[in-house]
Amino acid sequence: MATQFYLGVDMGGTNIKIAIVTSKGAIVEEAVMPTDIGARPEKVIASIVERASKLKNYSKAKTIGIGIAGDIDSASGIVRFSPNLPKWKKIKLKAILEKLTKKKVFADNDANTAAIGAHCMDTKEKSSNLVCITLGTGVGGGIIINKKLYVGASGTAGEIGHITVDPEGLRCKCGNRGCIETFIGAKYLSAYAAKYVQKNKSKIIDSLTGKDYSKITPKILFAAAVQGDKTAKNIWDYAGRKLGILIADILNFINPDTIVLCGGISHAGKYLLEPLNREIADRAFESSSKACKILVSRYTNKLGVVGAAMLAKHATVSAK
Amino acid sequence: MATQFYLGVDMGGTNIKIAIVTSKGAIVEEAVMPTDIGARPEKVIASIVERASKLKNYSKAKTIGIGIAGDIDSASGIVRFSPNLPKWKKIKLKAILEKLTKKKVFADNDANTAAIGAHCMDTKEKSSNLVCITLGTGVGGGIIINKKLYVGASGTAGEIGHITVDPEGLRCKCGNRGCIETFIGAKYLSAYAAKYVQKNKSKIIDSLTGKDYSKITPKILFAAAVQGDKTAKNIWDYAGRKLGILIADILNFINPDTIVLCGGISHAGKYLLEPLNREIADRAFESSSKACKILVSRYTNKLGVVGAAMLAKHATVSAK
Repeated sequence: MATQFYLGVDMGGTNIKIAIVTSKGAIVEEAVMPTDIGARPEKVIASIVERASKLKNYSKAKTIGIGIAGDIDSASGIVRFSPNLPKWKKIKLKAILEKLTKKKVFADNDANTAAIGAHCMDTKEKSSNLVCITLGTGVGGGIIINKKLYVGASGTAGEIGHITVDPEGLRCKCGNRGCIETFIGAKYLSAYAAKYVQKNKSKIIDSLTGKDYSKITPKILFAAAVQGDKTAKNIWDYAGRKLGILIADILNFINPDTIVLCGGISHAGKYLLEPLNREIADRAFESSSKACKILVSRYTNKLGVVGAAMLAKHATVSAK
Repeated sequence: MATQFYLGVDMGGTNIKIAIVTSKGAIVEEAVMPTDIGARPEKVIASIVERASKLKNYSKAKTIGIGIAGDIDSASGIVRFSPNLPKWKKIKLKAILEKLTKKKVFADNDANTAAIGAHCMDTKEKSSNLVCITLGTGVGGGIIINKKLYVGASGTAGEIGHITVDPEGLRCKCGNRGCIETFIGAKYLSAYAAKYVQKNKSKIIDSLTGKDYSKITPKILFAAAVQGDKTAKNIWDYAGRKLGILIADILNFINPDTIVLCGGISHAGKYLLEPLNREIADRAFESSSKACKILVSRYTNKLGVVGAAMLAKHATVSAK
């Protein structure tokens, strides 16, 4: 039997990644093109098809999966809106792509494609019940139940970034107060750090930012921690403990066998994981905690495109 | 085809309920016997079999399902411990029952059987994804995903009572701080009320308790609220808001189509639901909130025994 190929597209705010992927999630061919944020969505979609069709194995891929940040109706394949792509409003992504390619198209948000990618790449599809947490500007998530993407009653399952970890915390743009995103979303964490550093001076951070604390980013905090900076470590401790509260909730609630952390902030590694694990030890049921592997994805930059390609395999579990 | 019958047993700390149930969850026959807490578990199990075997349709039931509070290994059917039944430690409930009855036995904790019961009775098996929250002395939960009981990687999914709603809250016996049980578990809520009433005097509560506030129970708080007592209403407002934080988390996380509240505290009805719904409006995604019906079970006292009988139907989804 010929190997089954899938075409995956990961639409980011900076780049669009395209790949031909096997049914096991191995990348056979890939391409990257810059995202033209200013262009009409129809034009962007046409340029994706043009680039993809130049791949050697393009004709062998029977389905296309596409992941994109924002509010996607996976059933209809309509992009309601995308925070990275201001011109993408009510775009019939699936219908347009199917018309241009004559292939079956699946579309979902990029946190769900990351979860599929993590299930496929980080666990080799061995996990039954997995939660993927994307830690970037925002905090997102995707859920795999019984080896399939779980999207919930209206396709919005996995909005992990907006689970409350402090009911009296800061107001989030989602309307809630004190959701995890208001602690460890990159902008919030950087703003917290800028204030914290005012009161807890650090020569290392001063030298990395030229004392302009508005320049603090998670990357700078990581670099400072690697250099042994106590202030930066304390900030990671704060972030890790908040994330630990969230993960303890997830463990107690759905007792997954695997939690995968991905995205820029996950690269903080031990600086994040040590306080996180302490908090879990304090808060989660031991049996749930023991049953779950908590991993930092080894494939952060590939999860989206591989997971998008795999959407077809997961599509048997529908939104209803 | 002859109707399929199932035997259900709900082991409570006070009573044991036994019922013959159809595959649609309709009770055909039922019996109740007092729980002999002091007796050897083997003797209690034998007396359940004796009573059940007197039911007219006993021989037609091919399987037995039993629900019991505590830590049950559903795969092996061993009761590790049960808070209501101090003598029940490492009891091979399934093996003993199977030997005595020659029927296939399924055992699980009573929050999971309540979830199955709610799915069957309150939604007529129409819900795809349901969360049942049991509000009693403790706070428990069970999860139905794709119309089947979901138990997670080690069988401990649904420990909803120990999801954090205030990370700096009271220490719970589970080790965590500020889990929802420390706010609305009956004892915690009563203790909160006793303190609150000291500072916010209420003639109605004074008359219901003879000014002995250690006698305050959720039942008394409900009776006082029905009589229009402002102090009692404020206490329900507090409980409802905390429960609303939890439910907003559940909505954002797994986007269920139904949440069923059951157990004694759920009878507070509107006094609990109005503040709960306000909190959800503030905190949950609108799409998740709109997609979910939040019900107070109409069958609280039957959920356990019916859900236990239905365990066999749900057993195709295993713990792993």
